[in-house]
Amino acid sequence: MESAIPPQLSVPRVRHPRVPDDYEPRFPSFVARHRTSVRRLVMAYLGTQEGRSPAWLDAAMNAPDGPRHHDRAVPAWPEPGGPRDVVAVGYWDDTAAFDRWFTRHREAWLSGGAGDGRWVEVVRPAIERYETIFGRRSRPEGVAVLAAGFSGPVREHGYWGGMRDRMPASQVDPLHDPGPVDVERRGDRVRVRPRGSVCLIRSGQDWTDSGGQERRAYLGEIEPALREGMEFLRDRGRGVGCLANRYLRVVDAAGRPTDRSYGVGWWRSLADLERWSESHPTHLAIFSAFGRLAAARRDGLELRLYHEVAVANPDEQWFEYVDCHPRTGLLAVAD
Amino acid sequence: MESAIPPQLSVPRVRHPRVPDDYEPRFPSFVARHRTSVRRLVMAYLGTQEGRSPAWLDAAMNAPDGPRHHDRAVPAWPEPGGPRDVVAVGYWDDTAAFDRWFTRHREAWLSGGAGDGRWVEVVRPAIERYETIFGRRSRPEGVAVLAAGFSGPVREHGYWGGMRDRMPASQVDPLHDPGPVDVERRGDRVRVRPRGSVCLIRSGQDWTDSGGQERRAYLGEIEPALREGMEFLRDRGRGVGCLANRYLRVVDAAGRPTDRSYGVGWWRSLADLERWSESHPTHLAIFSAFGRLAAARRDGLELRLYHEVAVANPDEQWFEYVDCHPRTGLLAVAD
Repeated sequence: MESAIPPQLSVPRVRHPRVPDDYEPRFPSFVARHRTSVRRLVMAYLGTQEGRSPAWLDAAMNAPDGPRHHDRAVPAWPEPGGPRDVVAVGYWDDTAAFDRWFTRHREAWLSGGAGDGRWVEVVRPAIERYETIFGRRSRPEGVAVLAAGFSGPVREHGYWGGMRDRMPASQVDPLHDPGPVDVERRGDRVRVRPRGSVCLIRSGQDWTDSGGQERRAYLGEIEPALREGMEFLRDRGRGVGCLANRYLRVVDAAGRPTDRSYGVGWWRSLADLERWSESHPTHLAIFSAFGRLAAARRDGLELRLYHEVAVANPDEQWFEYVDCHPRTGLLAVAD
Repeated sequence: MESAIPPQLSVPRVRHPRVPDDYEPRFPSFVARHRTSVRRLVMAYLGTQEGRSPAWLDAAMNAPDGPRHHDRAVPAWPEPGGPRDVVAVGYWDDTAAFDRWFTRHREAWLSGGAGDGRWVEVVRPAIERYETIFGRRSRPEGVAVLAAGFSGPVREHGYWGGMRDRMPASQVDPLHDPGPVDVERRGDRVRVRPRGSVCLIRSGQDWTDSGGQERRAYLGEIEPALREGMEFLRDRGRGVGCLANRYLRVVDAAGRPTDRSYGVGWWRSLADLERWSESHPTHLAIFSAFGRLAAARRDGLELRLYHEVAVANPDEQWFEYVDCHPRTGLLAVAD
């Protein structure tokens, strides 16, 4: 059993983890381990509302200084009348490379819609204000594809508060400085500028390998609860501190849906995300349904769940929208 | 909004509450406020296994130096072949009075069974290692009957960890020093001596005023989930740190069941109680069912829920059993 906080990011604590030293999780989970030289990560979400992914996007993602990893997704359950975004997310662990890439491609992306919506939502958190959790040590997704590898089984999971305890900054920092959100409109451009930190979560599901009874349980019990939770956050999340939420299905290079999905949510604070996760009936339903399935399947569980969470200061954020549906991303906060 | 920790027990923190200062619970709850002169409380559970409550018990509870409050209960759902205890619990906030009373009555109680089981389970926690929570500000139960009154709405509830955050000692103390449990047999007497602290919870339900749909929801959905959780703890609790658990129905002076029940559990540590509460499917089911009912009924909810929790050092405990069923109370740990 090891700590999710790697030795080089361990500091004298002024804040304590939520569980005692003798706590033992009831099942193993793992975190992404980055090279010690990595000080900051970049998660850049780019969206288009023309309903199909332009060839330009692939070219940009594969251009020099492009992301070390990216994937593409579409709404898992498109909302009638709502935006039908194609969402690509790229990951960098070299901020200088990202800066060069963003300078070169941001404007081309945003101005290329010819009236169809385009947007970018970017954060670049310090490594101390970021964490992951994976149920399996293979097939990394999201930012973990950039990692040097996975940890062994970590202590800080399987209880409410593990997310915070896995984040190195939580040793000394309450990770809580939310602020109001400013909306700047200039021509066709809208910049959304939170004055405080925001919290980003990508929480993913992969049922590729789930067969038989497990697949039926996932699609018949867990996924409907997940969908209900995602729709609650999309439609009524503002009341609980969720600024925006998308529930997406990952697509392959040809645009065909895979058996992988993820929810991506922007939150006013890590604390708000914690409160919703641990108390909202839809999330407890997901949590309980998954717990029952895991207990029933024991080591045989093929369903893969993971998440990545980051807390980013105002100067580590960039939210920009052009010609977008008024409920797109953080525009919904101003709606 | 006030803190559950009263001003005179507030100290410079070395440990932080789990929620930020701007946290606001979604519904009000209240804590018992004792006179500032109260430094320690006594909770003394006395049980008999002859299946009826001897007149002696009433006399002792009403004798000089007796508890300022007591009530009596029987198993809510007697286990076939299990002990059918009558349980009386008395509360003191004057330890000198309790000591005199216990010296005078303990031996008479334990030796009065004529072969039927008798037991005592007592803790006397410092006020800093004790907390309560009530959904309503009227009709105190348990130790709260001794209080000077109720607080106003408190901040530290409605999230996992509120129980700990309400306990004044949590400002500076991890409240975690569990130890092995020694069992001393001498003649017909068995003393059970935990070498570390133990955590006691009395968690109560009062559906006296619940009518119509609310009563049906309580008896049809919440109570069955509660019963399942209580039976899990009784039969398989050792695996999650629950040393013993009873699910009891409060009876009136004539021994008739009332519409009030409580679970009383002895736990290896507050942390173990936290983990079970926040992750076990039966408790999440109770929590979710209650949350749905509360949301549906809003201010009209008549169901009353409360609990009292204490963490007691080894020298603040007394567990003694005579002629008892081998699964009685902490005897089950040695079973």
